[in-house]
Amino acid sequence: MLPFSSLIIINRKVGTPVYLQVANQLITLIRKGNIQPGSKLPASREMAEILQLHRKTVVAAYDELVSQDWAQTNPRRGITVSNELPLTKPRNFNTSSQAIGYSSKKSPGISSFPDILTSVPSGQRFRLSINDGYPDHRIAPTELLLREYKSLIIQSKRKKFSGAADPAGIYSLREVLAGFVSETRGLRLSAANVMITRGAQMSIYLASQLLVKPGSVVLAGDPNYHLADVTFKTSGARLVRVPVDENGMDIDWVSNYCSKQRPDLIYIIPHHHHPTTVTLTAARRMALLNLVVKYQIPVIEDDYDFDFHYSSSPILPLASSDHDGLVIYIGSLTKSLSPGFRVGYMIGAESFIQNASKFRRLIDIRGDHVLEEALAYLFEKGDMQRHLKKSVKLYHQRRDVFAALLTSMLGDRISFKTPSGGLAFWVRFAKQFPLPEISSLAAVAGLQMSDGLYYNSEKTNYNGLRMGFASMNEKEMRESMGIVQHILYQFKPAQVLRK
Amino acid sequence: MLPFSSLIIINRKVGTPVYLQVANQLITLIRKGNIQPGSKLPASREMAEILQLHRKTVVAAYDELVSQDWAQTNPRRGITVSNELPLTKPRNFNTSSQAIGYSSKKSPGISSFPDILTSVPSGQRFRLSINDGYPDHRIAPTELLLREYKSLIIQSKRKKFSGAADPAGIYSLREVLAGFVSETRGLRLSAANVMITRGAQMSIYLASQLLVKPGSVVLAGDPNYHLADVTFKTSGARLVRVPVDENGMDIDWVSNYCSKQRPDLIYIIPHHHHPTTVTLTAARRMALLNLVVKYQIPVIEDDYDFDFHYSSSPILPLASSDHDGLVIYIGSLTKSLSPGFRVGYMIGAESFIQNASKFRRLIDIRGDHVLEEALAYLFEKGDMQRHLKKSVKLYHQRRDVFAALLTSMLGDRISFKTPSGGLAFWVRFAKQFPLPEISSLAAVAGLQMSDGLYYNSEKTNYNGLRMGFASMNEKEMRESMGIVQHILYQFKPAQVLRK
Repeated sequence: MLPFSSLIIINRKVGTPVYLQVANQLITLIRKGNIQPGSKLPASREMAEILQLHRKTVVAAYDELVSQDWAQTNPRRGITVSNELPLTKPRNFNTSSQAIGYSSKKSPGISSFPDILTSVPSGQRFRLSINDGYPDHRIAPTELLLREYKSLIIQSKRKKFSGAADPAGIYSLREVLAGFVSETRGLRLSAANVMITRGAQMSIYLASQLLVKPGSVVLAGDPNYHLADVTFKTSGARLVRVPVDENGMDIDWVSNYCSKQRPDLIYIIPHHHHPTTVTLTAARRMALLNLVVKYQIPVIEDDYDFDFHYSSSPILPLASSDHDGLVIYIGSLTKSLSPGFRVGYMIGAESFIQNASKFRRLIDIRGDHVLEEALAYLFEKGDMQRHLKKSVKLYHQRRDVFAALLTSMLGDRISFKTPSGGLAFWVRFAKQFPLPEISSLAAVAGLQMSDGLYYNSEKTNYNGLRMGFASMNEKEMRESMGIVQHILYQFKPAQVLRK
Repeated sequence: MLPFSSLIIINRKVGTPVYLQVANQLITLIRKGNIQPGSKLPASREMAEILQLHRKTVVAAYDELVSQDWAQTNPRRGITVSNELPLTKPRNFNTSSQAIGYSSKKSPGISSFPDILTSVPSGQRFRLSINDGYPDHRIAPTELLLREYKSLIIQSKRKKFSGAADPAGIYSLREVLAGFVSETRGLRLSAANVMITRGAQMSIYLASQLLVKPGSVVLAGDPNYHLADVTFKTSGARLVRVPVDENGMDIDWVSNYCSKQRPDLIYIIPHHHHPTTVTLTAARRMALLNLVVKYQIPVIEDDYDFDFHYSSSPILPLASSDHDGLVIYIGSLTKSLSPGFRVGYMIGAESFIQNASKFRRLIDIRGDHVLEEALAYLFEKGDMQRHLKKSVKLYHQRRDVFAALLTSMLGDRISFKTPSGGLAFWVRFAKQFPLPEISSLAAVAGLQMSDGLYYNSEKTNYNGLRMGFASMNEKEMRESMGIVQHILYQFKPAQVLRK
């Protein structure tokens, strides 16, 4: 008999139940050929003694083997390893060539994608991180969400789901969001005007695929949200840059442009513009709406940050007025939860939402409908609204602390305006502190921060970055800011030396 | 004082805690104006008596109001409703026009998307459903997955996540899948060759966006997986149809084509071709691989069904041989879990995976990394492998039952071959039973089944559909089949009458 007591090792500290550990190790022995097909295993009583386990544990392990077809029970012979092993070994079709597969780094036949894409974040882990404007995942109502999720899963196991699922998302969440958006943003709409997406970025992508054709002229801010720029360019757009000042996009400039040529699309971020955090004023919204209706120009209104206002109240979106169905409105729930839960919504005329849903099937079939239904419950019970209110209160405090720290610790080496809402500051560094160098030095000190290149336009180096404050508590803010302060105050002498 | 005892109603049967019910209803009264800003609320002891609740419950409700800024506590005055209500009402910018928004169904300025898209499934609910080949969500290891998920969420709340996340997916799952794929499919690869997607469809979409340009020639089967066809067409491909017989795609035909013109891409489904369920033979794989390397043609190998084999063992994929990095290999975990959990993977040369990851950011930023990490644990513990084995055993039985029922109940009115693997039969109905009519009649009887149009090519009306057997137990199979049988046996006289 095999020396099972030394071959099978039980580790009581890992989460795996002991019977499964026994079964798994027996399977490994069978697969390796140490235990031959057709051979008899020790009786459960005997094996229990060998392994110093309760007999019931061994019986459970043997049951597992049988249920997986690795072994059979036989009234007379006891338990024997199957003659035909259940793991069907794949057949090789290729006897001649030596497999190399993916060992080569490059694929000669496949040309690489055009170089308009943003870099993929590095896998490096940092002790501290100043992000772009994320919520604090530590305060997210994840336990509530998981509780709903679990109870829905248990329910679903009792019934047979209808096979087909709507790529526009689960109806209950579309309905709940129609109500939420109408109450908070004054839009008049029904569930048929709403589709659920995996977040604002998917909404922008879908809208771009439907509205932009090669050669289309798209008006966007200078600067603008980088991934939106890339998305439009990927659809073949020619981007025309509209100046952005402290009152948002310059609508006189847009008016002037439209009088010469009708653009095919306008992309706006009405609240806390990305990256600059400015808000489009009421007067400019009015003027833009008139242009849109006059020239019949589709608009993507990316209002990802609407739910976060502190010092002043938000202004209603364009989509709340009469716009001939031209305004596609984009919102996000990711900012209210945690960056991991990617759920957002897009609002438009029914025909547009139907087409966007069809297109969504091509890229993603559909979302996680159980998660969507769980979210709908959280809205219905008021949990989401409650969480939003608490977040706004907390982020309001954090914004004020962060502004005070920026002033006291970084002083005139930077410039910024405190935003009226949103989850980030737009901070420009003085010219003598180039951000690529500052961020490399910060990385060495354990702080991840942007090198600012992401926020530049073709024309301008802003030497600025978004500093997300919402995800940090005061201690983390002080630590991160301390690192930046130290770098800025050490930096000057180094430059002087270089000269 | 307001008649709180009649205004605030407690329902002990719902999940919401009583203190929250009290707080929510007080908030509603404040918002409606029934309770005025600045007014005093009854002391907790008094309110507890009015509502017949424990005083601590009322204190908790009041704490909730204060934490949400709806009320303040004041050492002398007790609890008073805030003067400035925390709900910042959005400002209207538009005083002149009457809002209409999305009430109109059409958006005149937005042209609709080209009509190459498949229909969106209707929201109708059915008692029974014959799907396309879904797994049975009732046997999915969802409890295990949720347990891991929850413990990861709890861990994550204790630490600060690094902000940036890799759109290629969480590293641990990429690593685990590299091992799984190498063990089961003989591919030689590392984690850098693997990216996580939301399922096979997202993989097809990303590969198509990177490999297909307007005018590119794509070889695909006739018939072929409909959504892949649409995806390639959306990228501007010209589809060239390759005949498919019982041994899979006709590779002699491909060879003949290539000798005249080099196609830009070949799309194959090597196991259980969609819709016909045939498997590409070893000899044809060999021949195809030679063509691919000779002419340097990129291939998408969509092996979504590899893990489900019953009567014969699978054949290794093209990707397991030396292919100069030309083969993009696509796999799915959705089929092993439940249609709701959309997780799949794509394998390719490192440079290809990097580009595909960049593109993925545009459509979806990234996946649910907590779910991905939870799945990695299930693989590491062997739970996924165990679940797969059990599913294969169950689906093997179900396939045999389904085949027997098809023969005994529908007889010569249909034709089919029992597939060696996968989750569906390809069943063609005799010409005198047109599927659009059969499926309408089935819908009336409460059975959802395809009208077959989805599986047709431009050239051929197959009058066939995929009948997924894996998600049905024997009772459900008998009921569904009974409905189809009844329709087929009633159908003939009706046709005669019409003449």
